[in-house]
Amino acid sequence: MDFRYDARTEALRAELLAFMADEVYPVEHQFADERAETGSRPAAMARLKSEARRRGLWNLFLPDSEYGAGLTNVQYAPLAEITGWSPAVAPEALNCAPPDTGNMELLALFGTEEQRERWLFPLLEGKIRSAYCMTEPGVSSSDPANLGTAIVRDGDDFVVRGRKWWSTGLLGEECALLVVMGVSDPDAPPKSRYSIVLVPADAPGVRKVRGLRMFGFTHGASGGHGEVEFDDVRIPRSALLGEEGAGTKLAQARLGPGRIHHCMRMIGMAERALELLCSRALRREAFGKRLADQGTTQDRIAEARVRIDQVRLLVLRAASVIDSEGARAARTDISAIKVAAPAVTEWVLDKAIQVYGAEGMSQDTPLAELWVQARTMRFIDGPDEVHRMVVARRELARHRPAD
Amino acid sequence: MDFRYDARTEALRAELLAFMADEVYPVEHQFADERAETGSRPAAMARLKSEARRRGLWNLFLPDSEYGAGLTNVQYAPLAEITGWSPAVAPEALNCAPPDTGNMELLALFGTEEQRERWLFPLLEGKIRSAYCMTEPGVSSSDPANLGTAIVRDGDDFVVRGRKWWSTGLLGEECALLVVMGVSDPDAPPKSRYSIVLVPADAPGVRKVRGLRMFGFTHGASGGHGEVEFDDVRIPRSALLGEEGAGTKLAQARLGPGRIHHCMRMIGMAERALELLCSRALRREAFGKRLADQGTTQDRIAEARVRIDQVRLLVLRAASVIDSEGARAARTDISAIKVAAPAVTEWVLDKAIQVYGAEGMSQDTPLAELWVQARTMRFIDGPDEVHRMVVARRELARHRPAD
Amino acid sequence: MDFRYDARTEALRAELLAFMADEVYPVEHQFADERAETGSRPAAMARLKSEARRRGLWNLFLPDSEYGAGLTNVQYAPLAEITGWSPAVAPEALNCAPPDTGNMELLALFGTEEQRERWLFPLLEGKIRSAYCMTEPGVSSSDPANLGTAIVRDGDDFVVRGRKWWSTGLLGEECALLVVMGVSDPDAPPKSRYSIVLVPADAPGVRKVRGLRMFGFTHGASGGHGEVEFDDVRIPRSALLGEEGAGTKLAQARLGPGRIHHCMRMIGMAERALELLCSRALRREAFGKRLADQGTTQDRIAEARVRIDQVRLLVLRAASVIDSEGARAARTDISAIKVAAPAVTEWVLDKAIQVYGAEGMSQDTPLAELWVQARTMRFIDGPDEVHRMVVARRELARHRPAD
Amino acid sequence: MDFRYDARTEALRAELLAFMADEVYPVEHQFADERAETGSRPAAMARLKSEARRRGLWNLFLPDSEYGAGLTNVQYAPLAEITGWSPAVAPEALNCAPPDTGNMELLALFGTEEQRERWLFPLLEGKIRSAYCMTEPGVSSSDPANLGTAIVRDGDDFVVRGRKWWSTGLLGEECALLVVMGVSDPDAPPKSRYSIVLVPADAPGVRKVRGLRMFGFTHGASGGHGEVEFDDVRIPRSALLGEEGAGTKLAQARLGPGRIHHCMRMIGMAERALELLCSRALRREAFGKRLADQGTTQDRIAEARVRIDQVRLLVLRAASVIDSEGARAARTDISAIKVAAPAVTEWVLDKAIQVYGAEGMSQDTPLAELWVQARTMRFIDGPDEVHRMVVARRELARHRPAD
Repeated sequence: MDFRYDARTEALRAELLAFMADEVYPVEHQFADERAETGSRPAAMARLKSEARRRGLWNLFLPDSEYGAGLTNVQYAPLAEITGWSPAVAPEALNCAPPDTGNMELLALFGTEEQRERWLFPLLEGKIRSAYCMTEPGVSSSDPANLGTAIVRDGDDFVVRGRKWWSTGLLGEECALLVVMGVSDPDAPPKSRYSIVLVPADAPGVRKVRGLRMFGFTHGASGGHGEVEFDDVRIPRSALLGEEGAGTKLAQARLGPGRIHHCMRMIGMAERALELLCSRALRREAFGKRLADQGTTQDRIAEARVRIDQVRLLVLRAASVIDSEGARAARTDISAIKVAAPAVTEWVLDKAIQVYGAEGMSQDTPLAELWVQARTMRFIDGPDEVHRMVVARRELARHRPAD
Repeated sequence: MDFRYDARTEALRAELLAFMADEVYPVEHQFADERAETGSRPAAMARLKSEARRRGLWNLFLPDSEYGAGLTNVQYAPLAEITGWSPAVAPEALNCAPPDTGNMELLALFGTEEQRERWLFPLLEGKIRSAYCMTEPGVSSSDPANLGTAIVRDGDDFVVRGRKWWSTGLLGEECALLVVMGVSDPDAPPKSRYSIVLVPADAPGVRKVRGLRMFGFTHGASGGHGEVEFDDVRIPRSALLGEEGAGTKLAQARLGPGRIHHCMRMIGMAERALELLCSRALRREAFGKRLADQGTTQDRIAEARVRIDQVRLLVLRAASVIDSEGARAARTDISAIKVAAPAVTEWVLDKAIQVYGAEGMSQDTPLAELWVQARTMRFIDGPDEVHRMVVARRELARHRPAD
Repeated sequence: MDFRYDARTEALRAELLAFMADEVYPVEHQFADERAETGSRPAAMARLKSEARRRGLWNLFLPDSEYGAGLTNVQYAPLAEITGWSPAVAPEALNCAPPDTGNMELLALFGTEEQRERWLFPLLEGKIRSAYCMTEPGVSSSDPANLGTAIVRDGDDFVVRGRKWWSTGLLGEECALLVVMGVSDPDAPPKSRYSIVLVPADAPGVRKVRGLRMFGFTHGASGGHGEVEFDDVRIPRSALLGEEGAGTKLAQARLGPGRIHHCMRMIGMAERALELLCSRALRREAFGKRLADQGTTQDRIAEARVRIDQVRLLVLRAASVIDSEGARAARTDISAIKVAAPAVTEWVLDKAIQVYGAEGMSQDTPLAELWVQARTMRFIDGPDEVHRMVVARRELARHRPAD
Repeated sequence: MDFRYDARTEALRAELLAFMADEVYPVEHQFADERAETGSRPAAMARLKSEARRRGLWNLFLPDSEYGAGLTNVQYAPLAEITGWSPAVAPEALNCAPPDTGNMELLALFGTEEQRERWLFPLLEGKIRSAYCMTEPGVSSSDPANLGTAIVRDGDDFVVRGRKWWSTGLLGEECALLVVMGVSDPDAPPKSRYSIVLVPADAPGVRKVRGLRMFGFTHGASGGHGEVEFDDVRIPRSALLGEEGAGTKLAQARLGPGRIHHCMRMIGMAERALELLCSRALRREAFGKRLADQGTTQDRIAEARVRIDQVRLLVLRAASVIDSEGARAARTDISAIKVAAPAVTEWVLDKAIQVYGAEGMSQDTPLAELWVQARTMRFIDGPDEVHRMVVARRELARHRPAD
């Protein structure tokens, strides 16, 4: 039993911490304003990217050592945590931002040579971005049986028909690729009913309907969530990712590590919140006493520290199960962290906001935007309720009499 | 002991419920979009106002029966609750929206004839709106000793110098009056140190600095919160409200009923959330089962009902203490509801959002905007922490040995 | 809307508060020791009873004005609250202790003249006590379909066969009567399947199996909970209470007011805990500071006050619904308070225990025994889970489309 | 980073699990009854001890490899967890029960040869037991400045005068040694004000005043908590443990590993509760549905699993900090687990009790007794409030500007 990070991780952490201090925090506020006013990616992002690349902090997320850094999940997790301190800037600067990360993983694992050439390499270079189109309006997307978008074979082509929403990244101008999941064989059993296809963002029939707001925010770190109509979009068979009917398998391969990354960034966000809380509490007085000296403030700080440290260990352990036994074996571990991490982060952010008062929900601190991301994570990639069910069933199975 | 509303209240409730159904809910979504896109008050608001007036639903908040409806707090509370079902539309439509309500109360109680003529009557007519400038950047505003804005006598005038923020209503184009609290005698003991003056929004030296966002929302129901600089703003002595040095007394007179109104609207918001939650749970299925039939959903619904009913009774009792013994006697009762009501509302809204998933935080439901208002109430008009201290001290005083 | 108690209630409250101070609190500690050591009712109880009777504080619980005080539920509730300050002494001293109260209500409402003569009058005099035998081992008693005790007609007699546990009051030496619910017609539909019979405690075949401990406590206020075997106990037909098959109806008639009483006593227990917490916090220092001056202590005190006041109002409102519309109409109100009141009391007691440290769970304060009673109430008379379901279903029914 | 136990730990875990199944669980219920009825240690304990010894499961707690098993904290922690499944039987059977463990550690580290001969060896053999006398009535024992027991030099002797309570183990008939902390030099600075002496239980002037109940339990796993008067108890100078004035240092050396053990047993208790909860939920039906199939039950099971797994990792990490950096460096880690572990255990136990209903608090399950132990841990060895303060101060220190 050993709770220390290994040498390579520590070296990358040091490098990344320096990058955050030198390059990320200084531009954070300005980037947020720029996005809020123009709705576009800040121009200076390109510079950050090349700087990150220069420092060896590029594509760290990708376990494939040919295309990416070749880190294990346990190695990458502490780095993802650090990017969570500034989730609207750092992940993209390192080319480690969802949904591109998941899409790159899929392309690296299952893409044909042509697909890699056209989509994976530009993504790895950070030249284009991509969206992932899964959730559909009007139905509960935690249950895949509800999916209605059709991917119909028509001669040598596929025709995509349907509507998706909450497609992260869709609205960014750099978004060139839509990774779309749909029903390719409605009569097949669930596990071979779905396929995933690669749709160019400018394909005829792709209609971006609108942006979706999250608690009033219109443009998230990823360029915003969008609603998109696929109006008989015709794509060649070569646009199919992996096998026909392999959609479920591909989607699941994408989810495990993605959730680890999400959860580790959550932890970074919680640490950021705790730092902001503490530094404010040390500066601010009310009724002749520093907030930091008040028992109620101290209680929350202690509780935050205890919760964060626990959940980080749980996420790292889940990462280690993925590394040693694979994502499928780690399924309940991943459900567990998916419930636990956002809850902690939301809790700490709430307390930090309270210490800042009205300022804490304004544009003058990053707290409100971080809070929205944490709140969102309680239903994105499966609501807490479903993940709890997964964990409970596994637990009950252990206690079931052997008969 | 009698838990029923009286006949006048019931009649007004019936009238108001009809108005909500006929006029308010149908325009709610469109108003929200209009505000989000243009940042302005929807044009149709004028029609709603005249309709409300026609139906006898005008200025219900004002206990003064010459200028307003002459209702007690216990009578008005259930009506304020109903307006809370649509807080971005209904309160203004009834001319019962803060901060105008508090400002009108102050003017009715303490205004000179000239002040009433110039400001109170147009406000009562709904022709102008007003802002309340109290909180200041950089200091904890829960402790009045931190206030820095100066109101300095200069010959026959006052000169106002300082900066305020979170001035509700400031940014609306209809805002004609700023009610400003500041330090008029820095050497006086706290209770006679402050004064309140009436500053025309277009007075030279009044500079609107910027709008403050609440989470991602830029324009709340009130036309937005703003930051404003008073750059040696010169006003005549007749602009003083009440006595010089009476600022604290006036501010407190304003707060008691205002908090009752806030809390009752909170309860309406919680009821709205519960209705949305239930109706969604009755429609939506996941894994072959209606959400409404799932134990976890039912648990939350029951918990919501139990919490709402309790806190409503507590608010009504506080209202009855104000009516029978005055706002000062009700001080701890008001602190109690100020803590309890927003917490319930936030809780119910959180659960409703969870049932809607991502849709629940988007512009497609009113939940996110309601949630932000509830969250805000945990620090606006005094943070929970201060109100809890007030309640605790009173409780401890009861148990202190008499000697 | 009027939140004041009426004159009769206020007069009885004053009388009862004096009785508590003069007679109850002084003997409380000694009674607890006596019970713990001997397992018997303290000898001095008889004196308290006659004193209570002398002061007009006798049988206050019974709405029937011929046999009891003739108070409404709203009038009795604040008195029951006061007895909750010392639940191991006061309720019995006033002849208002369960399960006798419920049994007396049943006998007053449904008993034949002979049954009243034999059982009701001695109970009203406080000369005997009684037990209520409902719950059975090995099955979930929240679902009546699980009941297995048989009440079989045999010629002119009934024969009772089965086992009951958690029969409150069973083990007290004064216990003369067992009110037993069982299946009289297994083939009948649920609502006419059960009957209630009156079994003398000394009837042949009644075998007291053992006492049941509650968190280590062997003898509660009521003389202890017991397990009892009915081994073909033969009783005459005149021992049937009400109609044959009327068991469910009778049991429900018993439950409504009983739960109001329970909940109001819970509130008294919470007030007692808060008083103990505050007085300790005012006396005790740690690290150079009185606990009463620490923010965390104040937070809890405020939270306790806010919770208690809310839940009291909810219970009183439920009482008023029973008074005006009957117990059936108040069904969800009663479920609501049954969930809400014990939760508040348990919470306050937990905080009080924490302030006392180890002493708080010892025999040196009443806190531990009070806590056990509060905890118990989360499943006795139906677990929280079932009551929440009742509340949720009613709520959902309101929102169901009318069609 | 490696989350696996090492080979020696795994081997001992297997051995211990077999011992629990073969020897401990079968006698658990009978031991509890015996203790409840006779107040004495069950006779069969001797047999369990020799069996444990035979299996190599003896004195596992002692890091000293001459006298004990020589395990690190990380190695011992998972074993302590397993003993927590049956805390009233297993720890004593393995000679790993507090307060003996802490006392043996002190004697092994600081005892003279004579002291080891007389006290350590019989304790290591399990022939005698011991008590630890620290807490005093009437003062907050979380602040050592409150201690009042005097250890006064008188010629060649010490005279001990004072009163202690909550002296764990005091009342067991096997208790031969009292380890007593008191003030040896009232004028010295705090860190050299206290000394620890070894008082034979049968020394003249040692008067056992009474047993203290925990909730209703009179005899805990350790033979009960007692109150003891030291009435001018005279002991020779050779009875001093370590240096004069070294009391604080010794007490702290005792606490670190002791809290790790406590916390790991807590986790075992939580696992036991979860197992009992699951197995009951799989067996029990209500309203036609197994509890295990109800969403609310599943939610609690998942939450329990997630909480337990997190807190175990936190405790193991604290153990690893003690192993690698010493108990002093681990101070805030230990405070963190001292708050976190009992809270989780209490929570899971509460849910398990709820699933069992009234049975869950009776003598028919171990849940109530386990719950009392968990609740106790929220103030024993320092209340949560103090440990949170420790954690918060360390956290704030990190964020304090460097100046």
